[in-house]
Amino acid sequence: MKPKDAPKGPVDRKIPPGDNRERLVCNDCGFIFYDNPKLVVGAVVEAEDGKILLCRRAIEPGHGLWTIPAGFMELGETPHDGALREAQEEACATIAIDALLAIYSIPRISQVQMIYRARLVGEDFGVGVESLEVKLFAWDDIPWEKLAFPTVHWALVQFDQMRGKSDFAPLANPLH
Amino acid sequence: MKPKDAPKGPVDRKIPPGDNRERLVCNDCGFIFYDNPKLVVGAVVEAEDGKILLCRRAIEPGHGLWTIPAGFMELGETPHDGALREAQEEACATIAIDALLAIYSIPRISQVQMIYRARLVGEDFGVGVESLEVKLFAWDDIPWEKLAFPTVHWALVQFDQMRGKSDFAPLANPLH
Repeated sequence: MKPKDAPKGPVDRKIPPGDNRERLVCNDCGFIFYDNPKLVVGAVVEAEDGKILLCRRAIEPGHGLWTIPAGFMELGETPHDGALREAQEEACATIAIDALLAIYSIPRISQVQMIYRARLVGEDFGVGVESLEVKLFAWDDIPWEKLAFPTVHWALVQFDQMRGKSDFAPLANPLH
Repeated sequence: MKPKDAPKGPVDRKIPPGDNRERLVCNDCGFIFYDNPKLVVGAVVEAEDGKILLCRRAIEPGHGLWTIPAGFMELGETPHDGALREAQEEACATIAIDALLAIYSIPRISQVQMIYRARLVGEDFGVGVESLEVKLFAWDDIPWEKLAFPTVHWALVQFDQMRGKSDFAPLANPLH
């Protein structure tokens, strides 16, 4: 559908033939960069003792704040595999996905987040390159005031709501 | 996070600082085009008499073949709104979404498809600019041999499987 190589010439924002929206188009070779919403994939990860795996972010946005392992899905992977990769990258953790907990949509930043419910496999985890610290938190010790993003808050609360449930429709942005 | 304007200079494929994958980067201004998987949103649309709304494609890929209304999600919309828009664009149809039927992942082409179950609102529909023909099909008359994509086949079969069910985990690629 589109050439694999980078365009060679300068790029402008214009409506390609047959389209109805502005896209980034290379004036030289006609390569069109379709800029579409991005998928974030991640997981609420529970250890065997019921504690929750959180990472303190070493990067912006949210530097120094806590998050579940999650990040942008990459080319050539499935959402499921992306969530496994993010747990590995951010928390050096192997996880087993159990259910799709929620799909959040943040149109303001053109982002869709698919958040899974997962178990920590084994007891090993560590501090990935994008993390300052990775820890297991008992439910009552979760640093609610120091979470990096609203979606992390939503995912944790909805994880708690859905304990013991299976085969459910994934939850969505809360209506508040 | 990233500049709103198009880059001015030529673009190369290289690993930006702090990243671990090649991206398209403008040599002039440093603008990074993150090329991530794309979301396709669409719906299996049922009319009041149980017939299914299909569109015969006026564009490649699958020119001349039948599809459910679906297409790439655009910036600034939710998946739900994208599915409504596609039904309007391809079939001039107003639809009401009832459930998330399935999420298909096609890593070979870096695509994730979110397919909803929906009802046709009213009786009006028409032929959108990307369609040659738009029709309601009784289940037994669906042109199974002339469907544009495997995912259309999957979505129709899974729609049939899930009749009468609600609050279910979205289905996935069939395992064959």
